[in-house]
Amino acid sequence: MIPELLSLIGIAAFAVSGAVVGVRRRLDLLGVVVVGLATGTGGGVLRDLALNVSPPAAFTHWPTLAVAVGASLGVFVLHGRLSRLRRLELVFDAFGMGLFAATGASYALDRAAGPMAAVLIGTLTAVGGGVIRDVLVNEIPIVLRRELYAISALAGAVLTVALVAATGSLPLSTVAGVILAVGLRLISLWRGWHLPAPKNR
Amino acid sequence: MIPELLSLIGIAAFAVSGAVVGVRRRLDLLGVVVVGLATGTGGGVLRDLALNVSPPAAFTHWPTLAVAVGASLGVFVLHGRLSRLRRLELVFDAFGMGLFAATGASYALDRAAGPMAAVLIGTLTAVGGGVIRDVLVNEIPIVLRRELYAISALAGAVLTVALVAATGSLPLSTVAGVILAVGLRLISLWRGWHLPAPKNR
Amino acid sequence: MIPELLSLIGIAAFAVSGAVVGVRRRLDLLGVVVVGLATGTGGGVLRDLALNVSPPAAFTHWPTLAVAVGASLGVFVLHGRLSRLRRLELVFDAFGMGLFAATGASYALDRAAGPMAAVLIGTLTAVGGGVIRDVLVNEIPIVLRRELYAISALAGAVLTVALVAATGSLPLSTVAGVILAVGLRLISLWRGWHLPAPKNR
Repeated sequence: MIPELLSLIGIAAFAVSGAVVGVRRRLDLLGVVVVGLATGTGGGVLRDLALNVSPPAAFTHWPTLAVAVGASLGVFVLHGRLSRLRRLELVFDAFGMGLFAATGASYALDRAAGPMAAVLIGTLTAVGGGVIRDVLVNEIPIVLRRELYAISALAGAVLTVALVAATGSLPLSTVAGVILAVGLRLISLWRGWHLPAPKNR
Repeated sequence: MIPELLSLIGIAAFAVSGAVVGVRRRLDLLGVVVVGLATGTGGGVLRDLALNVSPPAAFTHWPTLAVAVGASLGVFVLHGRLSRLRRLELVFDAFGMGLFAATGASYALDRAAGPMAAVLIGTLTAVGGGVIRDVLVNEIPIVLRRELYAISALAGAVLTVALVAATGSLPLSTVAGVILAVGLRLISLWRGWHLPAPKNR
Repeated sequence: MIPELLSLIGIAAFAVSGAVVGVRRRLDLLGVVVVGLATGTGGGVLRDLALNVSPPAAFTHWPTLAVAVGASLGVFVLHGRLSRLRRLELVFDAFGMGLFAATGASYALDRAAGPMAAVLIGTLTAVGGGVIRDVLVNEIPIVLRRELYAISALAGAVLTVALVAATGSLPLSTVAGVILAVGLRLISLWRGWHLPAPKNR
């Protein structure tokens, strides 16, 4: 129950980040909804393909669709009042990423995936929506550009899987994983933390 | 039978649109065939992944492959006589999109998908090939740029699913869905219909 | 055993080509690893989705992950000593492509795919990793740009499937397919062989 709820919040957060990109790129109403929907549901569809859940939940579970479309429409209607679109996109993307890292991992465990597969599927779910969004609008994916992005997703998924093994509680472990992934990403954005880059030659 | 035939025509139409893009971008013979093949079969492969048809029909059904490769080769051979490549691409894309919206939905119903899943899988099948084509050649996908594109696909898929529920006839419902989707898209292209875009701020 | 080993070498080769692109694009440590990992494992994940292997082997088979991450880290650490990154990328990509064409085809045969499906899945495995790499960093995929790329993959997959049918030996057929695909690609790069392109009009 709690993982499902967190997953829906993640869908909304990612859909907002996608719709904000659509507004920033001046797409029309439907383009904004399409990017929002693809960003909000893309990670979960990849997760379901990897786990052989058919059809993927996004195609059969109406709340998923309603939340993603509703969040995108909300951005389209309200965008005139929104300022600093780029910052908004990054913050909502951080929440989507962190929520999906933990809920993707717990979803995989719940479907009998092993610990390594659960960690990797959680990470894939977390970064997948953002990659789809950025590839659609022809930008370098945020996972390649930004401070501690994939590492935050990986940390959240690892913590979730480790805590499930230690405590047996899926809901608590998922919440802890979300807090770690979102917190690490937001702090690294705020403080400008980053990993070493290749030196100029 | 009729849905299969319409699906093959959709593959040919999408392959032509992809091959035309390849010619426009001055790819070599094989590049043109690869874009044509990926555009013609991409939507159906996504559809089969979502429906867990394994291997996807494009990998096992030789007419699919023959039609997509043949249409691409035809464009490569004839392109010197073709004028207005951009318009040609848009018109063939409209036919591919509309044919796949309706046949994708009826194919999903035929494999026991629920009505909501059938509508969404039809829409995915319809827009998938074009997205793959445009991402391959580094353009913003047509579904994000263009007049009433996704809405035409959605309308065709909804009509197909609704008519199957009302009449029980898959072939007739599919034909009606194709006519609606292709017609709506072509009229919106011709008349320049479009949805509201974000106002400049 | 031999196909598995060749497949791991292919993962390493593709991961190197992806990590080299990441270094060339000045991504940070994690960006380099993410591109290397996606390039090294992407083709195999597409292959497993097509064959309904769930979860894909890259998510459950730790050597796959270790080889892809290790090769990417190696490039990051050593890149200061590497010269001519573009040539390095093309040569490692050629090995990854050729190894995956043959091992992808033999893997599909081993999972009861028909000959046509095995050829197509081998080709998809071979070109998939490179397409993912190039789409991630916003370049036109090498399969669309380059001399005899897809044709080399196709030739390697066809030879593998034909020799398995003729001799029944998966390992020998796979080795022969690798040699043909890698050799054809390297020779065509070296000699500048290419297919006809559309004439300027």
